[in-house]
Amino acid sequence: MSKYWSPLTASLEPYVPGEQPKDKTYIKLNTNENPYPPSPNAIAAMKAVINEDLRLYPDPNSEMLIQALAKQNGLSPKQIFVGNGSDEILAFAFASFFDPSKPVLFPDITYSFYKVYAKFYGITPKLIPLDEQFLLDVNQFKGEHGGIIIPNPNAPTAIPMPLADVKVLLDNNPDQVVIIDEAYVDFGAESAIALVSSYPNLLVIQTLSKSRSLAGLRVGYAFGSEELIEGLNRTKNSFNSYTIDRVALAGAVAAIEDQAYFQATTEKVVATRERVVSKLQTLGFIITPSKANFVFISHPTIAAKQLFEQLREQGVLVRYFASPRIDRFLRVSIGTDEEMKVFLEVIERLIG
Amino acid sequence: MSKYWSPLTASLEPYVPGEQPKDKTYIKLNTNENPYPPSPNAIAAMKAVINEDLRLYPDPNSEMLIQALAKQNGLSPKQIFVGNGSDEILAFAFASFFDPSKPVLFPDITYSFYKVYAKFYGITPKLIPLDEQFLLDVNQFKGEHGGIIIPNPNAPTAIPMPLADVKVLLDNNPDQVVIIDEAYVDFGAESAIALVSSYPNLLVIQTLSKSRSLAGLRVGYAFGSEELIEGLNRTKNSFNSYTIDRVALAGAVAAIEDQAYFQATTEKVVATRERVVSKLQTLGFIITPSKANFVFISHPTIAAKQLFEQLREQGVLVRYFASPRIDRFLRVSIGTDEEMKVFLEVIERLIG
Repeated sequence: MSKYWSPLTASLEPYVPGEQPKDKTYIKLNTNENPYPPSPNAIAAMKAVINEDLRLYPDPNSEMLIQALAKQNGLSPKQIFVGNGSDEILAFAFASFFDPSKPVLFPDITYSFYKVYAKFYGITPKLIPLDEQFLLDVNQFKGEHGGIIIPNPNAPTAIPMPLADVKVLLDNNPDQVVIIDEAYVDFGAESAIALVSSYPNLLVIQTLSKSRSLAGLRVGYAFGSEELIEGLNRTKNSFNSYTIDRVALAGAVAAIEDQAYFQATTEKVVATRERVVSKLQTLGFIITPSKANFVFISHPTIAAKQLFEQLREQGVLVRYFASPRIDRFLRVSIGTDEEMKVFLEVIERLIG
Repeated sequence: MSKYWSPLTASLEPYVPGEQPKDKTYIKLNTNENPYPPSPNAIAAMKAVINEDLRLYPDPNSEMLIQALAKQNGLSPKQIFVGNGSDEILAFAFASFFDPSKPVLFPDITYSFYKVYAKFYGITPKLIPLDEQFLLDVNQFKGEHGGIIIPNPNAPTAIPMPLADVKVLLDNNPDQVVIIDEAYVDFGAESAIALVSSYPNLLVIQTLSKSRSLAGLRVGYAFGSEELIEGLNRTKNSFNSYTIDRVALAGAVAAIEDQAYFQATTEKVVATRERVVSKLQTLGFIITPSKANFVFISHPTIAAKQLFEQLREQGVLVRYFASPRIDRFLRVSIGTDEEMKVFLEVIERLIG
């Protein structure tokens, strides 16, 4: 604590990212990165812009990237916003659409950054409890409130929400913004992008960090009605006009346009996930129905914290959350087949 | 206006960046970019990290860059913060140190983003008037207030503040944070970095965008006491944990370490500025005493707006601010000698 901190900063409870250890080389299954490299086209596009033009500001409106996303998704450029990772877009969206005088609804088990954003903007969260299977009842998301945010698939449970449920949310809450955070949607869930032109209150947020293998580049994007996108731009231009650098812009455009590579690597991750799930089931694990690039697993007899620590000692990093209701579970990112083979061998030994 | 915007977003008055026209090629003297390319070492370092590791998150703490800055400035890593451009650091600093219940002091003529940040955080600015020569009386910055921010040199006037004045500010206001925004300091003004270890209330902000020729990369940094840096980190980690991408991180480290290249290009810009100032004086212009990479000029008989438009027609872009007290002036970035030769020829023809 410092006398120089504002009351706001003194009150914050900052997010803690997954560890990036430097002590030795781990099989890193703890931050849901993609095990495959980015598209070769994206690599080439980035190399091509590492030149003297870096002395110049980037396009503050990232028009090239917005055009590429508009074309691919059959939307107008005015329905698209881009940011420095989907986390930055979430931060702008909480400011733009959630009225601090009313509670904002999200699941009690979800991406832990939401409560951090709420605190930053003085918003009171109203947590909607998932059931014992971590399933969400969309009909609980209504009444007097200031907005809704739900990841699809949810994190860290990996469980998807059917598009029919998203429609119910939008129909039940026409006067509030509903944000669907689709960071992991490409690994098997249904995107709500198809609903963007029908619902003025829908904002869909996606990222290059997971299915496009570009966590190191920091680019996210959002789809919504023109009025929502204008709101995001008002907020962004009151905070930082130039959020995406020239290299990230070039890499993002090429990654978006290389649909074939994206599909091939995504299918590989999904196939590996299905094999891992089968094997973990034979080992007695409880596993939520995952449509993400990670699985959420619990062993009936061995404590998750103990397993987490033992895996770490054996050189395998996974994520453990010491939070109520989920402290019996581990979140395990899907790596390459080789990495998952080692993971499964280690875990079989540990529980054996 | 949209019913979905929060009261905050509805109330904002966003910043408008300098234009980046795409209709034709201009001599671009409107956004204070450096006319020289980035360090060749920075170019090489960036190319070297365009590889498969981009699938992985960057170091959220940017330790390599913080180490390089610490070494160069004789400070501890705990006295350094880095961000996605100095604008992002300013946005975090307004949140971290300025109590919205009290007015924040800055000059009436200054970087126009300050009043935008103030609006974003519900802070009331108290504008301290510069005198007729745009000079600042530091003894006016005291009393009951929530903090101080001043650019050195000031923008768009280009006028530097002596280090003795910064000391007076810090001594007069020991209970409030004083932010010195040194975006342009390397072109001849005195940095306050030397005071960082003596004054717990001092935050100095710098950027790679100007003197390091990397506006396209979006990296800024701040120097301050450990408690101020901790405050910035609390705010950042409540907003976006991964603000600097892998490529920007590598380029920034190499740019910081290539001190010889930085000195050579900075000296060239300063030498060109001095020649331009001499020539403009012979043409009858009023010119503020610039220690920045731009000059702030006024012609006694020809209106600045008219000159701005005529220069644009002739393919030379400069910046005109339609604001009280400075609407007789143009802000002209210092380009290469060749670019400034064209600028001077055009302007001599226009006023002739």
